[in-house]
Amino acid sequence: MAEILTLDRIKEALRGLDIVGAMEEGFVAYSRGRVVVPPVGEMIFEDPPGDVHIKYGFIRGDDIYVIKVASGFYQNPSLGLSSSNGLMLLFSQKTGELLAVLLEEGYLTNVRTAAAGAVAAKYLAPRAVRRIGILGAGIQGRMQLEYLRGARDCRDVTVWGTGDEELAAYKKDMEAIGFRVRTTRDAGEVAAECNLIVTCTPSRKPLLSAAQIKPGTHITAMGSDTPEKQELDPAILEMADRVVVDSLSQARLRGECFKAFEAGAITPEDVVELGAVIEDAKLQRASDAEITIADLTGVAVQDIQIAKAVWKNSAIS
Amino acid sequence: MAEILTLDRIKEALRGLDIVGAMEEGFVAYSRGRVVVPPVGEMIFEDPPGDVHIKYGFIRGDDIYVIKVASGFYQNPSLGLSSSNGLMLLFSQKTGELLAVLLEEGYLTNVRTAAAGAVAAKYLAPRAVRRIGILGAGIQGRMQLEYLRGARDCRDVTVWGTGDEELAAYKKDMEAIGFRVRTTRDAGEVAAECNLIVTCTPSRKPLLSAAQIKPGTHITAMGSDTPEKQELDPAILEMADRVVVDSLSQARLRGECFKAFEAGAITPEDVVELGAVIEDAKLQRASDAEITIADLTGVAVQDIQIAKAVWKNSAIS
Repeated sequence: MAEILTLDRIKEALRGLDIVGAMEEGFVAYSRGRVVVPPVGEMIFEDPPGDVHIKYGFIRGDDIYVIKVASGFYQNPSLGLSSSNGLMLLFSQKTGELLAVLLEEGYLTNVRTAAAGAVAAKYLAPRAVRRIGILGAGIQGRMQLEYLRGARDCRDVTVWGTGDEELAAYKKDMEAIGFRVRTTRDAGEVAAECNLIVTCTPSRKPLLSAAQIKPGTHITAMGSDTPEKQELDPAILEMADRVVVDSLSQARLRGECFKAFEAGAITPEDVVELGAVIEDAKLQRASDAEITIADLTGVAVQDIQIAKAVWKNSAIS
Repeated sequence: MAEILTLDRIKEALRGLDIVGAMEEGFVAYSRGRVVVPPVGEMIFEDPPGDVHIKYGFIRGDDIYVIKVASGFYQNPSLGLSSSNGLMLLFSQKTGELLAVLLEEGYLTNVRTAAAGAVAAKYLAPRAVRRIGILGAGIQGRMQLEYLRGARDCRDVTVWGTGDEELAAYKKDMEAIGFRVRTTRDAGEVAAECNLIVTCTPSRKPLLSAAQIKPGTHITAMGSDTPEKQELDPAILEMADRVVVDSLSQARLRGECFKAFEAGAITPEDVVELGAVIEDAKLQRASDAEITIADLTGVAVQDIQIAKAVWKNSAIS
């Protein structure tokens, strides 16, 4: 019978798993057109305010399909509960049987997002990373750095945030796992010092300008996943040697590329998908002088891949 | 933590529950516009062939919301598995927390469909039912009869089917629960003998004609839930004193009313919703001579209501 896996067991099953490799496989399948992702389902509640999103899909020829239910109930903290919640259901693509319920509470969504950043860095960041820059000292800012450890050796970090307290907490947490962290409230310092930058903020206006970006920089922009959010000046995408997205169809509707298309800075023809980059060395960084951008808005195949990997590993252990 | 309820425990929780009452409440909420049902999600698989439908919704102001996943994998029987599968997820509408996973395997969908037939009979069938007629000797033909026991006292039944073997099995099963069953392969005999008729076949052409229907007959048409399926001649709906549907918006797209609208036999203005009939005695059967039709295509609020009732009862027991 299907099992319910709690977050503890999910975290246990994640240990030793090659989630970055699972993401690579997923992006390749996606860019080859093998992934089916129907429109997202939505329910909106008014009293108390909440929203629920139902995302589902499958890789053609795979063993499983996945339905993810993610919710935000904004008065939950007053009840001592997290405002965000999430679970993933795994079913057999051969028989329709329920295989597992992963009560991941949004954690797997965070992990798969961070692992996608590592994939982008692997293929696009300079070979020798001088210093890593992180914009945004929240959960994703932490997890991005954690997952970059497998992509590059650099352990020197400059983190930008808006509050001294959150920056101090970030520094403490990340030094505990082996990084040397400098904090700043000036994003320009990150651009000046770092040649691998990850932006993970909910900003609605550019945090970095084109004049600040030095040759040889790679930026992964994770924060913007709506038409409103924006972390990079469109001129950065215009000056970049390569602009890579996880999903071209989503890039037309949201994220940094959407903003840059709207501004006329670049066109969809200037952009390639990460799955294609993984498969074709000619689309990867070609020199230490290039400026490269990865604009990631998040695709359902990441959920499929991480749910499958966790489920298979939990069945073994 | 959320619990997984297997079919055994679901059947146990159903005992003693007033599912017909839960359906009535649901239909009333639906017709009052209190039910939110977003478009159905769908995935289609090719090898092996299968389809998955994701239905979800909620009653405004209720405690819960429900997501139902129903699948059909047509090669399952060769593996010793049922081709149809289903589960319902219950979540809190206040916090988004998962409350229960009901592994109902399609059973609750059958029950809520049968219970809706009982609601229709309660408000629309003649007070004195001479003989019950059932068209279709399958699972739903059995369950409709089972649930009619609470609506009317009559225990005499004529059942129509297409095979002697299935008719004999039906007779045996239904006599075991207290009915006296006569079988026939002539649907006209059902119309001649019975004043409460339930049609539950996958027919794509009318099984009954207007000339066969006697005054004082009520027919609940359950079988047609697509634009293609049809069990009744549109002239029957035209001659009827009352035509009732579970959902007016669905009746425009599928079922007997859709066919009758298309044929110009009736218009949407001739039809009222079951939820309104329950609330207003003037919309219910007014005399023993009336011909009344209930055309039910199945609405998501029935899933919400039965899942909620089962969950609440399983928590107590």
